[in-house]
Amino acid sequence: MTAIVLLSGGQDSATCLAIAKKTVERIHCICFDYGQRHQIEIESSKKLADLAGATFQLIDVRFMAQLSNSSLVNTTAKIEHKDGELPTTFVPGRNAFFLTVAAMVAHQFNATEIFTGVCQTDFSGYPDCREAFIRSQEKTINLAMETNITIKTPLMDLTKAETVTLMNSLGKLDWYKHTHTCYEGQQPACGVCPACRLRLKGFQEAGIEDPIPYRV
Amino acid sequence: MTAIVLLSGGQDSATCLAIAKKTVERIHCICFDYGQRHQIEIESSKKLADLAGATFQLIDVRFMAQLSNSSLVNTTAKIEHKDGELPTTFVPGRNAFFLTVAAMVAHQFNATEIFTGVCQTDFSGYPDCREAFIRSQEKTINLAMETNITIKTPLMDLTKAETVTLMNSLGKLDWYKHTHTCYEGQQPACGVCPACRLRLKGFQEAGIEDPIPYRV
Repeated sequence: MTAIVLLSGGQDSATCLAIAKKTVERIHCICFDYGQRHQIEIESSKKLADLAGATFQLIDVRFMAQLSNSSLVNTTAKIEHKDGELPTTFVPGRNAFFLTVAAMVAHQFNATEIFTGVCQTDFSGYPDCREAFIRSQEKTINLAMETNITIKTPLMDLTKAETVTLMNSLGKLDWYKHTHTCYEGQQPACGVCPACRLRLKGFQEAGIEDPIPYRV
Repeated sequence: MTAIVLLSGGQDSATCLAIAKKTVERIHCICFDYGQRHQIEIESSKKLADLAGATFQLIDVRFMAQLSNSSLVNTTAKIEHKDGELPTTFVPGRNAFFLTVAAMVAHQFNATEIFTGVCQTDFSGYPDCREAFIRSQEKTINLAMETNITIKTPLMDLTKAETVTLMNSLGKLDWYKHTHTCYEGQQPACGVCPACRLRLKGFQEAGIEDPIPYRV
């Protein structure tokens, strides 16, 4: 059995990869280059795929920059995040797009599972991270291609702390050394952006030390 | 009210554009460059958008060539079509992909309708042309982006002959001069490929002459 793993190079997708590794025979990782600031995430993704003994495919979707004015694909926009509002890094429909492309790759590889690290627990305002969306997307791709693909979201109902604890129990905590979370796209991580704060809080609550270095 | 029209440069999308023109205030046309043999279709699309007084956006999705081995995006593959089998031009999930991107564009333009010329009557084996798929895709994009976008498929239940008759009644039959259907991507059209034969049959049944020239 073959599975596609959506690998962003972040902590959640690394955990997904470790979970897939436990149950799946062959893993094909895909990583999207959409002109994000985080070129470092692409390197992280490659390294993680290597560690898992998986094949790796970088998919150039930089045309996405035409489709939105989000700060995640616009290097001049400032990153802001107010409570209760969608973060300005929000690219509307991004996960719908990624999962549709993943489904086309799955069809090509005769893969029957797609793993994605989306999570509705640490709710950041992204509607396309919710369970209702995922199940609708799954139904849609299977109607589109007459396939029987399952979208696996093993982190959907976990807190960040639970994700860290799960990775520890899988014996793959060292993989986190190669993950990148910081919105600023730098190493060492800034430690103060919303993504870094969420990550650090998760490790703190799990009582486990984050293996990556921070500036602060 | 703004609508997005998916414009391929073929007869069906030209008809969709004429239908949208009747009811919609502002029309934004999108056309996908996915490395198809039919570069001529892109020119046709631009011309049609001009005729409708609509804005036009060409979206470069040539990365799709990585996602399938279909003859439509592989200039060395031979076009074949056996009855009861999916044509070799089939790119699995193509409409799911196009509609997802169209939805992202719709979000950017605050458009509430997407027009597509898909048709389940002239059934060519494409599962992502069926009504059940379209409604599932519509639900999925709206869950993904918290929008209220309708996917309009005015040709869904029409035969090719009914489409031609409808275009005639809209007084836009001359737009067909600028459409391209032939699989071979040439002008004059070959007249013998499955696409040409389906087109010619439609005009014949409607009792209306096709305004484009044919080699045979």
